[in-house]
Amino acid sequence: MENKPTLHTSLSPTLLHLYDVSNSIVVIIDVLRATSTITTALYNGARSVIPVDSVARCIEIGRQIEGVTAGERDGKIADGLEYGNSPFEYPREFIEGRTLVLTTTNGTRLLHMALDKGAKEIITGSFPNLSAVCDHLIEMKQNVILGCAAWKDRVNMEDTLFAGAVISKVRKHFAINCDSSHLAETMYEKGKKDLFDFLKKHDASHYHRLMGFGLEKDIRYCLASDGANVLPLYKEGKLVVK
Amino acid sequence: MENKPTLHTSLSPTLLHLYDVSNSIVVIIDVLRATSTITTALYNGARSVIPVDSVARCIEIGRQIEGVTAGERDGKIADGLEYGNSPFEYPREFIEGRTLVLTTTNGTRLLHMALDKGAKEIITGSFPNLSAVCDHLIEMKQNVILGCAAWKDRVNMEDTLFAGAVISKVRKHFAINCDSSHLAETMYEKGKKDLFDFLKKHDASHYHRLMGFGLEKDIRYCLASDGANVLPLYKEGKLVVK
Repeated sequence: MENKPTLHTSLSPTLLHLYDVSNSIVVIIDVLRATSTITTALYNGARSVIPVDSVARCIEIGRQIEGVTAGERDGKIADGLEYGNSPFEYPREFIEGRTLVLTTTNGTRLLHMALDKGAKEIITGSFPNLSAVCDHLIEMKQNVILGCAAWKDRVNMEDTLFAGAVISKVRKHFAINCDSSHLAETMYEKGKKDLFDFLKKHDASHYHRLMGFGLEKDIRYCLASDGANVLPLYKEGKLVVK
Repeated sequence: MENKPTLHTSLSPTLLHLYDVSNSIVVIIDVLRATSTITTALYNGARSVIPVDSVARCIEIGRQIEGVTAGERDGKIADGLEYGNSPFEYPREFIEGRTLVLTTTNGTRLLHMALDKGAKEIITGSFPNLSAVCDHLIEMKQNVILGCAAWKDRVNMEDTLFAGAVISKVRKHFAINCDSSHLAETMYEKGKKDLFDFLKKHDASHYHRLMGFGLEKDIRYCLASDGANVLPLYKEGKLVVK
């Protein structure tokens, strides 16, 4: 009998230490909107995306490498940066060949945690690159941790749904002894017909936050599968297309 | 407009610090089987239940107060203790008027965490006392944290389902801006027709562990509502009927 690799879901960065990070591929999931924007920029030809954890660091690195600096705080472009967190700000005619220096809070923090714990490989996942993520995980035959970035460590609906979407597509290739994964998959199966409507109906907190900023178009894009289907792989401080 | 109290769900002890414990009633949830056994012993007339975190402490306190000492490790009664974790070990003819000193790992640890963080009130919840918990929370009109004991900090299915059951019954009395709560409620709505079958179908890890010990009867009892419908309230080191 074939020995399948394991798959676990960490619903919040606070739970990541419970899993065997150093022996796994970690998928960083920050659906609204960091990892959706990252895959979009790369899909549209960005040379790389550098995720950083503070505005100051974003400005500093942007200056050093003549990169595009981007990031928001409280729904507005942060002081000193040029662009925001929306995937629509990064069409090919703008971002092709350039490096995006992006500061986000939840997603970047989780990525650095995975790095510190010696993850075997780090990739980013979001609905716009769902298939690329699943194909890669099936191909690699390694243990996997689906790492939800959550919101200030609180479990959120949209990252959980994406973990569930991955699981529903890769489950037969993995040994899954993980209630968080079963929970995520059950949620996805229940919501998959209309994820936007599901977030709305279930009062998802981040859905409300973004709708309050007038970002319905962003949310709809971030919930649609395979619109920017490449695989961002973390390598020497940068996310590049695998 | 009436200002409703808030309700949050902490899916693992590791997440408890994210919520405003000192301003809330905390419901300790350890469905399989600690909190089910606690409510059963109290329903059957136990004078109180003293939750302790180690076998040594269980023996020590049991001796001091001539209590019934109980607890399991790896599915067997722990060395030096007299009884196990099953609710069926505590019928009225045995436990009435006596004090049960119970050592459990996940549930007791969470209870002590809530205590350390200055919870306004601590009660325990399980399906056998679902209605008592809900009636109390509605009556008290205080902020609530549903605290899942989980399994070694990993989110589990059965505690999440119980949180969802509570939410489905009390939701109109609370302001619920908490994705974990929405997630728990969705899971419960999906599984409520047959919770045993739901755990089985979704490969819940603790379900498997207990089935491996031949404990199907325990699981079925622990998933049935209101079989031992009293409210265990933590007071000066003991759980007593409110």
